[in-house]
Amino acid sequence: MINPLYLPEIREMLAEDDAQGLAQFSTALHPARTAEFMEGLTAAEAWAVLRHAELALRAEIFGFFDEAKQTEIIATGDRAEIGELIAELPADDRVDLLQRVDHQIVAELLPLIPPAVRRDILRLGSYAAGTAGALMTTEYASLGEGVTVRQALDELGRQAEELETINYLYIVDGEEHLRGVVSTRQLVSSLGRPETTMASLMERDLVTVDVHEDQEQMAERVARYDLLAIPVVDEQRHLLGIITHDDVIDVMRQEASEDVYRLGAVGPLQTGYLETPWFTLSWKRGVWLIFLLLVGLLTALALKTYKGDLERPEMAWMVFFIPLVISAGGNSGAQSATLVIRAISLGDVSVSDALRIVRKELVIGFCLGSVLGLIGYSYVFALTSAGAVSGLVIPITLILVVICGTLIGSLLPLLFNRLGLDPALMSNPFVAGIVDVAGIIIYMNVALLMLGH
Amino acid sequence: MINPLYLPEIREMLAEDDAQGLAQFSTALHPARTAEFMEGLTAAEAWAVLRHAELALRAEIFGFFDEAKQTEIIATGDRAEIGELIAELPADDRVDLLQRVDHQIVAELLPLIPPAVRRDILRLGSYAAGTAGALMTTEYASLGEGVTVRQALDELGRQAEELETINYLYIVDGEEHLRGVVSTRQLVSSLGRPETTMASLMERDLVTVDVHEDQEQMAERVARYDLLAIPVVDEQRHLLGIITHDDVIDVMRQEASEDVYRLGAVGPLQTGYLETPWFTLSWKRGVWLIFLLLVGLLTALALKTYKGDLERPEMAWMVFFIPLVISAGGNSGAQSATLVIRAISLGDVSVSDALRIVRKELVIGFCLGSVLGLIGYSYVFALTSAGAVSGLVIPITLILVVICGTLIGSLLPLLFNRLGLDPALMSNPFVAGIVDVAGIIIYMNVALLMLGH
Repeated sequence: MINPLYLPEIREMLAEDDAQGLAQFSTALHPARTAEFMEGLTAAEAWAVLRHAELALRAEIFGFFDEAKQTEIIATGDRAEIGELIAELPADDRVDLLQRVDHQIVAELLPLIPPAVRRDILRLGSYAAGTAGALMTTEYASLGEGVTVRQALDELGRQAEELETINYLYIVDGEEHLRGVVSTRQLVSSLGRPETTMASLMERDLVTVDVHEDQEQMAERVARYDLLAIPVVDEQRHLLGIITHDDVIDVMRQEASEDVYRLGAVGPLQTGYLETPWFTLSWKRGVWLIFLLLVGLLTALALKTYKGDLERPEMAWMVFFIPLVISAGGNSGAQSATLVIRAISLGDVSVSDALRIVRKELVIGFCLGSVLGLIGYSYVFALTSAGAVSGLVIPITLILVVICGTLIGSLLPLLFNRLGLDPALMSNPFVAGIVDVAGIIIYMNVALLMLGH
Repeated sequence: MINPLYLPEIREMLAEDDAQGLAQFSTALHPARTAEFMEGLTAAEAWAVLRHAELALRAEIFGFFDEAKQTEIIATGDRAEIGELIAELPADDRVDLLQRVDHQIVAELLPLIPPAVRRDILRLGSYAAGTAGALMTTEYASLGEGVTVRQALDELGRQAEELETINYLYIVDGEEHLRGVVSTRQLVSSLGRPETTMASLMERDLVTVDVHEDQEQMAERVARYDLLAIPVVDEQRHLLGIITHDDVIDVMRQEASEDVYRLGAVGPLQTGYLETPWFTLSWKRGVWLIFLLLVGLLTALALKTYKGDLERPEMAWMVFFIPLVISAGGNSGAQSATLVIRAISLGDVSVSDALRIVRKELVIGFCLGSVLGLIGYSYVFALTSAGAVSGLVIPITLILVVICGTLIGSLLPLLFNRLGLDPALMSNPFVAGIVDVAGIIIYMNVALLMLGH
């Protein structure tokens, strides 16, 4: 959603090279809002505006641009100025950004970046995507145990501008082992006792994340412990970086989207719906649709097996109810899968709860199947001339199919989780497809049992 | 997941009334971890342990208990002690808590709570669930514009223990109108100039939320602007409270869960899967299943309409493909609905993008339908003795059904959004059900056109 409100004014100032006006525009609003008003500009125009803001603010506004514009500016701007900008960006963001830019351009930019920053970029860039290491920033405050409250505040004052967060001071020993954490809140509360040392203030029982740990687990932990940032350590407990709340929120959104897409049988998207090209979307959907069509082949095969029976006059009416019967199973299976997958994602259940889950789903399946069966029985009389006894095929099938759906829908995600796969791969359409096949077999066998071969 | 590691030790200390041991246990670990180790205790046991921790820590550990245990402790503990505990809890949490407790007990507790806290509880409790007002806390730091950096730090030091967050100082005028905000980071950076006033430090372009605004919009805004807390104001811009990042994370999880449940045709749960009783689950699922069974009735009616045709020998083989054809439409419809619903939730698309979305879905639908059609055509030869021309019914139907699925799947959520309803009510099973009916009608009409009446 582009906000065109100030676009004409901005373009006029650019045309007139109105340095003062452009500088004012950059400082008047919250950087995120400034970036919003610049969304309609081309990358070149946006960069021409930004050059009138001082470096720190320029980097901040740049951080709120969308990814496409950021990448284009990096690729096309004056190399020396871009090098300056990169050095000013948050340590974690600039690594993500450079990974989206052409290798050749990155190779040209790196020599223009101060050596310490360059080393930092190369180090952070070495962690696999989706791990804590790939999300962390190295811009945190760390102090020794002997530092006093007064010294800590002075130090914070000097560094505050460059730090990603000043909510926590991390206390380390001479070899950078993490020993404890002092919150700014504790520091400020202790202003009356300025000679207190960090060692006596610090919390020693720490919630940390291993540098190679999965980002989803990390986000769960931050949410559970209500943290503003979490320290990232290696196996020897060296402090390597921190992950701040804004990145945690991004991870949660991303993981929730992934679950939603998978449940809908769409491969997860990396970009917004409108930005994703139609062929990428087709590919991410087509793979699943083709796979589901193979499952559909099984339903056709199952029905073909019962060809002779379906052609008997007393069973002809049953054809009408095929979609109804199998979709009742598929829908209840999709419900069970949705519930179990979400519960696994939220950390509410694990494989060890499988027996409890299955018992619960059995009860629910029987109860729901019975209600649907009653309604389905009434449909038989409304739509067909089948007798009271042969009509019983529908309610009996519905009960069995719904129970089958709840069992398959709850067990498949648990099984996938057990195998170390993402349970959300058990999409609703996939569960429904499997239950469709089972539904046809159940339906035909109930009919043959009731009506005789 | 209950951690039983220390349960025997805790129970032994309780039996021996080992006050020192219990006090040590309470302080040794992070409060969230202490609460985890107490999960296996009954409410009465947990409260007996907590009473050995000092009040502030007691309230903190209590805050990490699950809702059921919190409610039971409030209902059964000594009234005077519980009153003390409630006064110590964060302002927003205690309101949520009291709303889950029996009215009679709340009426007995309120007189035991200090008057200022009591008024605060009644005021915060008056906002509708799901609004910013219902989430906010009143424990923020607010100062006048003339206050200096030195005074602000002193004031923060005095209040730090009681505030929910000290990341931002809110600057108000004499009538509590919000004028600006100063971050603790700015404050700490300005330590070298202790006489600077808030008026010269403060950011005046503020991101705020109206007290009656929906919590989902609020969370979106906090995520977009990377905020740690957002101020809540009324129409006259009086500062009423703030919402902190931990509540924002909770809202995002809750909203993501709601979308997931709705997409799976389950009424949103208020509690975890295992804690939700089977009859509540049955109810939240049964309502949807019954509704979907009514949609299923339409498929039976549609098929019955074509009874005579389906009994013709040259069309008999088509019965096998009914589930396959309609599930291809249902699946592609579910994909479109998933994509559009998620994009609406993330704020990526709005109703004004409807035309772009429909064009895109048409292209994707044609492309996917053609691929599925090719595969489906090969199925015809593998499974039936239908000729090359009459077999064309399957690919033509698949193309039309998939296009129909993508259109219905994308338009229904947009329509619901336009009507002010939650687009996620267009669950995947519902979209699939509608497309099933359309699919049967398309299938039969294509067949009759190709094979003649």
